[in-house]
Amino acid sequence: MTDFKVLILGCGSATPTICHAPTAQVVELRNKLYLIDCGEGTQLQMRRYKVHFKRLNHVFISHLHGDHCFGLPGLISTFGMLGRKGDLFIHCPAEVEAFLSAILVQFCKELPYKVCFNVIDPNRHEMIMEDRSLCVYTIPLKHRIPTCGFLFREKPSEPHIIREMIDYYNVPLREIPKIKQGADFVTEDGVVIPHNRLTRPAALPRSYAFCSDTSYTTSIIPYIQGVDCLYHESTFLEKDMPRAKETFHSTALQAAKIALKAGVKQLVLGHYSARYNDIHSFKTESETTFPKVVLSNEGLIIRI
Amino acid sequence: MTDFKVLILGCGSATPTICHAPTAQVVELRNKLYLIDCGEGTQLQMRRYKVHFKRLNHVFISHLHGDHCFGLPGLISTFGMLGRKGDLFIHCPAEVEAFLSAILVQFCKELPYKVCFNVIDPNRHEMIMEDRSLCVYTIPLKHRIPTCGFLFREKPSEPHIIREMIDYYNVPLREIPKIKQGADFVTEDGVVIPHNRLTRPAALPRSYAFCSDTSYTTSIIPYIQGVDCLYHESTFLEKDMPRAKETFHSTALQAAKIALKAGVKQLVLGHYSARYNDIHSFKTESETTFPKVVLSNEGLIIRI
Repeated sequence: MTDFKVLILGCGSATPTICHAPTAQVVELRNKLYLIDCGEGTQLQMRRYKVHFKRLNHVFISHLHGDHCFGLPGLISTFGMLGRKGDLFIHCPAEVEAFLSAILVQFCKELPYKVCFNVIDPNRHEMIMEDRSLCVYTIPLKHRIPTCGFLFREKPSEPHIIREMIDYYNVPLREIPKIKQGADFVTEDGVVIPHNRLTRPAALPRSYAFCSDTSYTTSIIPYIQGVDCLYHESTFLEKDMPRAKETFHSTALQAAKIALKAGVKQLVLGHYSARYNDIHSFKTESETTFPKVVLSNEGLIIRI
Repeated sequence: MTDFKVLILGCGSATPTICHAPTAQVVELRNKLYLIDCGEGTQLQMRRYKVHFKRLNHVFISHLHGDHCFGLPGLISTFGMLGRKGDLFIHCPAEVEAFLSAILVQFCKELPYKVCFNVIDPNRHEMIMEDRSLCVYTIPLKHRIPTCGFLFREKPSEPHIIREMIDYYNVPLREIPKIKQGADFVTEDGVVIPHNRLTRPAALPRSYAFCSDTSYTTSIIPYIQGVDCLYHESTFLEKDMPRAKETFHSTALQAAKIALKAGVKQLVLGHYSARYNDIHSFKTESETTFPKVVLSNEGLIIRI
């Protein structure tokens, strides 16, 4: 099965610390890279963890807070200096496009490639990108400014051919694509062999949901139901609930409640407030409610 | 003597690497901090090297290239989140002000402090800032876009009183400020004691010149003549001279030639191109022409 991976480049929050970089993640599927958020220093984190700049064509920005987008000017500019030719697609709310466009006018007059904006509506759940391998959908979140998460849903693969059956029934090569797409095979004698005797189903399509920044809201559950992996922000611990409410963020326990209600297979925590020195308490708090919790950390690779 | 120090936060060039951060330096004199340039990640470097955010009130930006100013939005925003109240002065060419203003409109609507711009003319040599301890002057440089360096010149201190002489002549306390400012003392008997018998001169005022980015140009020599310390960019080595010319940068040897002609006391090299793995060759090359060369590196403190 092809690797479907998420690399954490940063899991800190608003004020960066020397322990945690601001938010950025790289999703990888079939050698293609997709960047989610781009806090200050993301290009450096990409170098540190040997992310291939050239394989990245799509960037998704959740909202216009500095810790989620201040790394974009540097990244766009460095891509230019390295001679990038291919278009770079930035999927983002209107405010982020306005912010970046103003900078591009100042800086990137002679960029050797094109920055293409796909302005998204963070208040709607809809498909915003599709390629051969996956579809990306927005997940409306509840934050101080318009914000959305992103759902990466792998496309279903074609079923696998059972070599022995193909040989046994003497199926010509030209018939195989049709059989993979669900056609039955008819032998020279007119016998119908159902396609599911000739194939076995492909692995189930995988899914990854990124939800940051957001206060606790069950409204996201229909969109993330049953995903293989959910990254849900946990800026605070329960003891700092008043601050979580005030800033429209979540606690580790709230993230776990969402994971449980949505029946996800795995929960990844992150976006830790700079006030906590030891992040292990996030896991402890979360595991009181949901069993499979992973603490994100810079450099962590999650296999979906 | 009060400490006059420069802390190197970043000495890399256009494309950041995991070895060198982009340009940023902190000048410290009498507990006040002055930031020169602010590449991406500067706020993090400040945290790493325990720079007191609150003691910084003046930022000097040499030019509108990303590796010299992409850290400003994050820094300004973090200062706001930390509840800064005092004005922050940014001394910069008009293009930098335009870039930052556009961002401030988007981001910092509710900043709890004021960002005050002092738009400078990078083509002129003039005093752009003065406080109790020092004056800062622009140094016109030769780069692809309008760029200037900065000269930090300590103000002359008052001479020191010679305790024994004061006692000997029975000088009343109230006379001392006048004597420090150059007045002679007249005893009760009408004898004139020249002020230089009662004082010894203060240490000579110190000076630091920052020159980056620039191609080799002797036009800067009158402005940096005899400074205690000159930071002169050395993006390239002599073997890459064509590239240096093309990009309006200098080689380590050219930096040494300027240091020699200007009769400075110490030369600090930096702004190394990402193509060099080992920066020691910069020192070797430079020392063929000028004896006192220091290689800048992240975290290095230079005492002026």
